[in-house]
Amino acid sequence: MGLDVHLEISRARPGRSLEEALRAAVVEGRLAPGTRLPATRALASDLGLSRTTVAAVFAQLTAEGWFTARVGAGTWVAERQAAARPGTVASVRRPGVRVDLRAGIPDTTGFPRREWLAAVRRAAGSPAADLGYPDPAGTPRLRAALAAYVARTRGVVVPPGGLVVGHGFGDLLLLACRALHDRGARRVAVEEFGLASHRALVASAGLEVVALRVDQDGAVVDVLDDEVDAVLLTPAHQFPTGVPLAPDRRRAVVAWAQRTGGTILEDDYDGEFRYDRRAVGALQSLDPGHVVYLGTASKALAPAVGLAWAAPPDDLLGDLLAQRELSGGQPSGLQQLALAAFLEDHAYDRNVRRLRAVYRARRALLEEVVAAELPGCEVGGLPAGLHGVLRLPAEAGVDAEEAITRAAAARGVLVETLSAFRAPGPADPASAIVVGYGGATPGQYERALVVLVESVRAVLTG
Amino acid sequence: MGLDVHLEISRARPGRSLEEALRAAVVEGRLAPGTRLPATRALASDLGLSRTTVAAVFAQLTAEGWFTARVGAGTWVAERQAAARPGTVASVRRPGVRVDLRAGIPDTTGFPRREWLAAVRRAAGSPAADLGYPDPAGTPRLRAALAAYVARTRGVVVPPGGLVVGHGFGDLLLLACRALHDRGARRVAVEEFGLASHRALVASAGLEVVALRVDQDGAVVDVLDDEVDAVLLTPAHQFPTGVPLAPDRRRAVVAWAQRTGGTILEDDYDGEFRYDRRAVGALQSLDPGHVVYLGTASKALAPAVGLAWAAPPDDLLGDLLAQRELSGGQPSGLQQLALAAFLEDHAYDRNVRRLRAVYRARRALLEEVVAAELPGCEVGGLPAGLHGVLRLPAEAGVDAEEAITRAAAARGVLVETLSAFRAPGPADPASAIVVGYGGATPGQYERALVVLVESVRAVLTG
Repeated sequence: MGLDVHLEISRARPGRSLEEALRAAVVEGRLAPGTRLPATRALASDLGLSRTTVAAVFAQLTAEGWFTARVGAGTWVAERQAAARPGTVASVRRPGVRVDLRAGIPDTTGFPRREWLAAVRRAAGSPAADLGYPDPAGTPRLRAALAAYVARTRGVVVPPGGLVVGHGFGDLLLLACRALHDRGARRVAVEEFGLASHRALVASAGLEVVALRVDQDGAVVDVLDDEVDAVLLTPAHQFPTGVPLAPDRRRAVVAWAQRTGGTILEDDYDGEFRYDRRAVGALQSLDPGHVVYLGTASKALAPAVGLAWAAPPDDLLGDLLAQRELSGGQPSGLQQLALAAFLEDHAYDRNVRRLRAVYRARRALLEEVVAAELPGCEVGGLPAGLHGVLRLPAEAGVDAEEAITRAAAARGVLVETLSAFRAPGPADPASAIVVGYGGATPGQYERALVVLVESVRAVLTG
Repeated sequence: MGLDVHLEISRARPGRSLEEALRAAVVEGRLAPGTRLPATRALASDLGLSRTTVAAVFAQLTAEGWFTARVGAGTWVAERQAAARPGTVASVRRPGVRVDLRAGIPDTTGFPRREWLAAVRRAAGSPAADLGYPDPAGTPRLRAALAAYVARTRGVVVPPGGLVVGHGFGDLLLLACRALHDRGARRVAVEEFGLASHRALVASAGLEVVALRVDQDGAVVDVLDDEVDAVLLTPAHQFPTGVPLAPDRRRAVVAWAQRTGGTILEDDYDGEFRYDRRAVGALQSLDPGHVVYLGTASKALAPAVGLAWAAPPDDLLGDLLAQRELSGGQPSGLQQLALAAFLEDHAYDRNVRRLRAVYRARRALLEEVVAAELPGCEVGGLPAGLHGVLRLPAEAGVDAEEAITRAAAARGVLVETLSAFRAPGPADPASAIVVGYGGATPGQYERALVVLVESVRAVLTG
């Protein structure tokens, strides 16, 4: 097995991490279901990686359902259940898993079916010409509705003709990265905490990914220099640590872009969801000439809508469209018209308000339970978005993260370690559990928190 | 101006043709609207290309709306109207253009709105879990419905789990080409007649595109050798010449694949539409282990549905899914569920039958009009699909093609020359006009044929 793993590593493309190589090996069947994986300690020394790195990779692949782990017994390649998705973790349905508290999964139980159907009805009534091949940039009607929406809710400065509609955040990130690469960009800084799949997309465009440190004020943008061509940020709500980019850093990163001609890729994945105050506007409004704003309907409506949008600088728009030409297909015109009608009717805003109330309550409950039941622990980050970070006492260590996720999973509750979102590199002293409160169906959530609390207690006191 | 063109050529990526370079230059604004282009003869000698090649590129870009040409006056970069689409030509709406008879544009006037809405209603009633991130291969429900459909209508041999759902033909072609490239494929043979955008997609995957001659029996597959790793074919109805791949050649190309381990990419874009007899089944059924079958809903339902499907060999499936992971996004889950419900209800079959009757009648009218009004001309290819090829007398020559398309366009009827679909290379003695009868709305079509006939007469007798 050690040999197989080495084989897979050797097959890794440039920029492809151990995690990507192992995931691909499982997807492609080169690591068969039931195959036992070596101990993280042994594999780490085999590969000359830190054990933390290998453990983080195993935890991520376990959380995604590729691997299964049994406490004290080891890790195996899982029987194939569902494939991982680009953009975020897979909605795996494993027997015994009752509640999925992984980050990035929105609540779709209240999907506004009636209003969506009304929107589809209006869309299907469009002129026949609108049922042909859509404009590669997106249907004019949707771009107009989106330009008004992002201006009103996020302060994004863009004319309808300046927007590009895509299949999802990942699709548009890839088009932007390819366009930047064609212009000579070679290196992109990515926040050290984030989704491995996003790092993989940037790398697949032929760009070198360098990790950007994240602290309590967000990404440490001060270190950006003219060796970096672009930076991928989550300014409103760093994913997954949950902190906002501090005002002085917002100014600093824009100054960097203006000084060096660099590009800021703004991932505004959950900008609509802040519970303590009005959300900080998009960074893009500070300098539309250097920021590619990226928004999505996946969190605020449903992933199954399959639409996202980009507001690139004017001089990048043509290059993005040229990349769309080479990408082989744009989003469904019917679906775009439906979302346009849904936005025009303000049904989108109503759904955001509904979800905001749902998530605010779940966030509050998480904070209350942790404060009351887990002395020494705290929920970090802003009261915002679809997830919180349960910070463990400093002395707990990374092994505690993993032990807690395994203990919870053994009782049917799926949570992830903070390390699982960390770019390969030196170990992080702080350890924490990322708790997504979007995916749990009503009723499940409270029970899941009890399991989580008991799992944390068992590990910290055990 | 000549200098600018040279600049654009020098910017061309490997595998990028003059056409792609010029299109990109216009898309990216490096060739400004209103810029006058040099005479084809002059540019051809500047670039060391045949005038036919340059003329074909100009005709294609004119047909796509990037260039505008005035008879006897020259060619200019058009004022931006609409961008070209991958997969087929753009549905440009230029003032004065009343009827669009370009190939590949289906009739969407009769889109079955009521039945589609019923399908969306059933889709929106799916469990909340189905509204999350879809399986990268496609929702199981749609794959099951498609597996039954392609088996029943095209004889494709594939289990539901063996299908991959994509955004369109181009999306899946690109995933397949990237997967083949990762496995070491370097050279792909593409029929000499086809869409430049398909050649561009293959090239963008890092593959060398070599043209495969096409004669009255379809692609001349006898010349394939072990220097070629894959071949892109339209076996049921060669696009756009309209001939089917002869039985002995179907056997020969499969033998080539088995002998060399090569892969056949089967573009079954309009396999549902044959009017003289039952359509020949998919080539894939002869050897599912060496053929990637590619089908789409764009012709049989509407391009705005934005869904297509691939049935790859088992051993390529994992690689295709790995490429999907790196593509940044899969098709909308809601849209997939809607198409699944639409198929389950046999509404898809009903729509194919409806369109078959519409296209059969338009095809018959084209043949009647040409036989009666244009002695020396004939409609070539099978009575099938959404377009016919109006073959001009041998002595007419390529300039006649171009003159006819310009004369028709001047009277508001958009048709394309056969040369416009030809890969750069030595001139083709035969000249013809490609007449698409899908896009014209009822009533327009008859008037458009009159204009076409008069345009052909004016040029041939003028």
